[in-house]
This record gives sequence, structure tokens and C-alpha cells, in this order.
Amino acid sequence: MYSEKGTHSIEVCFSPLSWPLYQKPGALVIVTDILRASTAICAAFHNQVSSIIPVAEISESEAYKQKGYIVAGERDGKKLDCADFGNSPFNFLDPALQGQTIVMNTTNGTQAIRAASEQGNTLVIGAFINLSAVCRFAMEQQKDVLIFCAGWKNRFSMEDSLFAGAVVEHLVVASKGEFHTICDSAVAAADLWLMAKGNLMGYIEKAAHRHRLKKMGLDDVLEFCLTQDFTSALPVLEDGKLVNLPQEK
Amino acid sequence: MYSEKGTHSIEVCFSPLSWPLYQKPGALVIVTDILRASTAICAAFHNQVSSIIPVAEISESEAYKQKGYIVAGERDGKKLDCADFGNSPFNFLDPALQGQTIVMNTTNGTQAIRAASEQGNTLVIGAFINLSAVCRFAMEQQKDVLIFCAGWKNRFSMEDSLFAGAVVEHLVVASKGEFHTICDSAVAAADLWLMAKGNLMGYIEKAAHRHRLKKMGLDDVLEFCLTQDFTSALPVLEDGKLVNLPQEK
Repeated sequence: MYSEKGTHSIEVCFSPLSWPLYQKPGALVIVTDILRASTAICAAFHNQVSSIIPVAEISESEAYKQKGYIVAGERDGKKLDCADFGNSPFNFLDPALQGQTIVMNTTNGTQAIRAASEQGNTLVIGAFINLSAVCRFAMEQQKDVLIFCAGWKNRFSMEDSLFAGAVVEHLVVASKGEFHTICDSAVAAADLWLMAKGNLMGYIEKAAHRHRLKKMGLDDVLEFCLTQDFTSALPVLEDGKLVNLPQEK
Repeated sequence: MYSEKGTHSIEVCFSPLSWPLYQKPGALVIVTDILRASTAICAAFHNQVSSIIPVAEISESEAYKQKGYIVAGERDGKKLDCADFGNSPFNFLDPALQGQTIVMNTTNGTQAIRAASEQGNTLVIGAFINLSAVCRFAMEQQKDVLIFCAGWKNRFSMEDSLFAGAVVEHLVVASKGEFHTICDSAVAAADLWLMAKGNLMGYIEKAAHRHRLKKMGLDDVLEFCLTQDFTSALPVLEDGKLVNLPQEK
């Protein structure tokens, strides 16, 4: 996996704390927060919402609510008082949301989007449910790739790292040498993915956040969040809003 | 591997940047920087040096040199101008150093020692060459264990993480339930170790720092740094100095 040859590099950032080390102008940044923000965002665009405004502060969510927006948001799995619903991906599949704009605030995910958007990179949201679509997009972009794991409260997160590993494996294998990595975290993520991918539902029992969600009764989404290629939605950031990138057939 | 049962917990911190998240009074902190600082320190105590003063700033090394101390130190593989020798573990095996005090300054390792020593924890230096000794010590201490990977310039480092995984595996297996972990990075480190341990010299070809050392002509130490249990030295921090903990027979 380690190779210095190849036009474009892939790196994996395990935590928002480390993000300042990964500054790279002109790169494609794939932001992921598998349980559950990035999965919910991809589900929303699969459900044809118009746009999602990611916000990091609770006060921002409250201000949007007062302006009449639909607001989704949680902290530590608990719905914000001002929110219409929490961050379960299933909430975002409600047909009533089609064509609507949603303001979204999560514990880790939207904070990562906010941090990553400050550098003018191309930013796409990745999850297992849009894995192939994200990888195709990354191949087309012809840019260096940074995978930004939202983590859990700035810590390494197993499920986000497994997704990062899946992207690394897909790109390095599919690109046949076009992508390379000399990034230890990318190599580690890919190897963890190799261990896990044969039985992802079994492997995820090792992940702390799986158990946090279980204790909160929020783990009904687990299988959905680990399902590959449920959608070809490609949420990209444009002018501070997430929109679905129209895909060519 | 994930388990909430067990008297003592094990956590792994992949980078000095993340260290503030791992504050835990009364814990045993195992600091590692396999290539090459922690290996060099263990080699030095195997060679019966009297003590090692870890310093983080170059100006500190210069001040000690002026006072007549033996000074070892590097930045990015290059010997400091004020240093008597660089940080190759082989330098620390020179019989002339027996009974001496050495001032040591490294790119990542001594910075990590400095950061970890600010919390009043018990601090021990770990490397593959003293793996079993460190694990035995951890078992005897009856404390929570934090493994602090020095990393490379605040990034995740494969070789340090593999060592962390080896300690996690040893403690969890050997303690038969006394130690537990709900830390995703500890679980990931242990699984990477499981992949690597059958052929550590082969696996380390994936690590970026292995290639950095090769380019600088400093990789003659690779096999030594990956050798398990060359020594039973146990470098612990006492009053700002590393000394060898006398071991009971």
C-alpha cells in the first residue's frame, strides 16, 4: 500500500484536532461521520432534499429556527430543544422533506464540515451508503484526496476510519497506480478495512460509538449506516450549503 | 477486544496533539517512539548508563553541553551541532557511557516525554526491545494504562501504533480480564499488531518513517528497533530524569 509513485496522493486525518496538519490547497476533502451525520446527509439527498445548511453552534440552529427553517440537530445523541428532529438517517428519509432546505447541527460531523470548509477545497460528504459514488467522484476530480474523519470528540473513531480505509483501498486498487499514499494513517485505515470488510456488522462491535448508541437506544440505524451503495447521492459544499451534485449518466 | 469489564483500562493516544484528551491522574503512561528515541533510551539503560535527562528545546541541549554534560540529540535525523552523537540506539551501547548521565533531545520522543511528565503520572519508556519488561511492570502497577505514541511531527505513526497494539494485546490476554478497553484507538492498534506481528520487518515497509530513515541512511537500526525483548531495562522518570528501575528477581 505504501507507495511514492502515482500522480495524486491520499491522506487520512483521524481527528479534527489533527486537521491543521493536513492543509493542502486544491485537494478534494471527503468528510465522514458514519454514525450518523454523514450517513444522514447522504440519505437526505437520496430523498431529494434541496439543500442542507451545516452549522456548528447551537445558537446558529436557534437563529435559523426562528427564521422558520426546518432544523435537525443533536448533542451527544439528544435532540436539540430547537430542533424538529434528531440526526437519525431515517428522519431524513421522510418524503415531506423533498425539495426542502434543512439546517443541521451534530456533535462531530458538522463541526468537521465547518473546519474543512475554511480552506477553499472541494468538499464532499462520504458514507458507506454512497461509497462507490464518492470513489467515482474522487477518480474524476484528478486531485489529491484528504479524508477527514469527524471522530468522536476529537478522538479516533473506528467506524470513520474503516470508511476512510474503504476509500483508500478503492482508489488505490481502482486507479491502478494513479493514487498513492505515504501516509501511515491511510495505510492503517486500509488495513483495518481489510480486516473488517468481510463482516462489518460483526467488526463494528469493537467500536465504542456503537455501544454509546446502543445505550441511548439509537442503534436501530447501525445496519443502514454500514450498508454500501444505498445511494449515488453526492453532497458537495457550495457557498456554505450542501447540495447534491448532479451526476452524468 | 472491546470490553467494559475489567478493573483497569487501557487507552492509546496516537499523537501528542491528542494528548490533552487523555488526562488521567494516577495512570501509568507508557511513552514510545520506536524509531528511534525510546529504543535508544532502553538500549542506554541496558548499557548501564546512570541517567538520561530528556530535553525538548535545542537551547537546553546547548546549555547542558556548556556545563560539560554528554549530549545526544537530533532534529529530523541530523545531529545537533552541540551534540556528541545522534540518536541511533547503537550510539547508546558504547561501553564508555556506562555510569554516565546523558542529555537527550529528539524530534518527537523527548517532546512526548516532556508533555507526558506534566501530569504527575508514573512514566515508563516502552519499545519493542523491552516489551515484556514493560508489560510485566504494567501488570504489577495495578493502574490504568495510557500508551502515548510520540508519532511523527504530531501525526499518527505506524511503528509506534504497532508497539501500542502489542502492549494492548499482551495486557488484555495476559491479565485475563483485569484490563479492558473501550478505546477505539487501542482496539485499532491491537488489530494492526495482529496483522503485523507475524512478519514485523515486512510489515514495517508500509511505514513512512521507515522510508525517511532509509533516505537519510539511518535505517541500519531497523531490525534492532523491531527486536522484541533484547533487554529488561525499565526507564522511568524520576524528578525530571530517566533512570532504570531496579527489578526484583
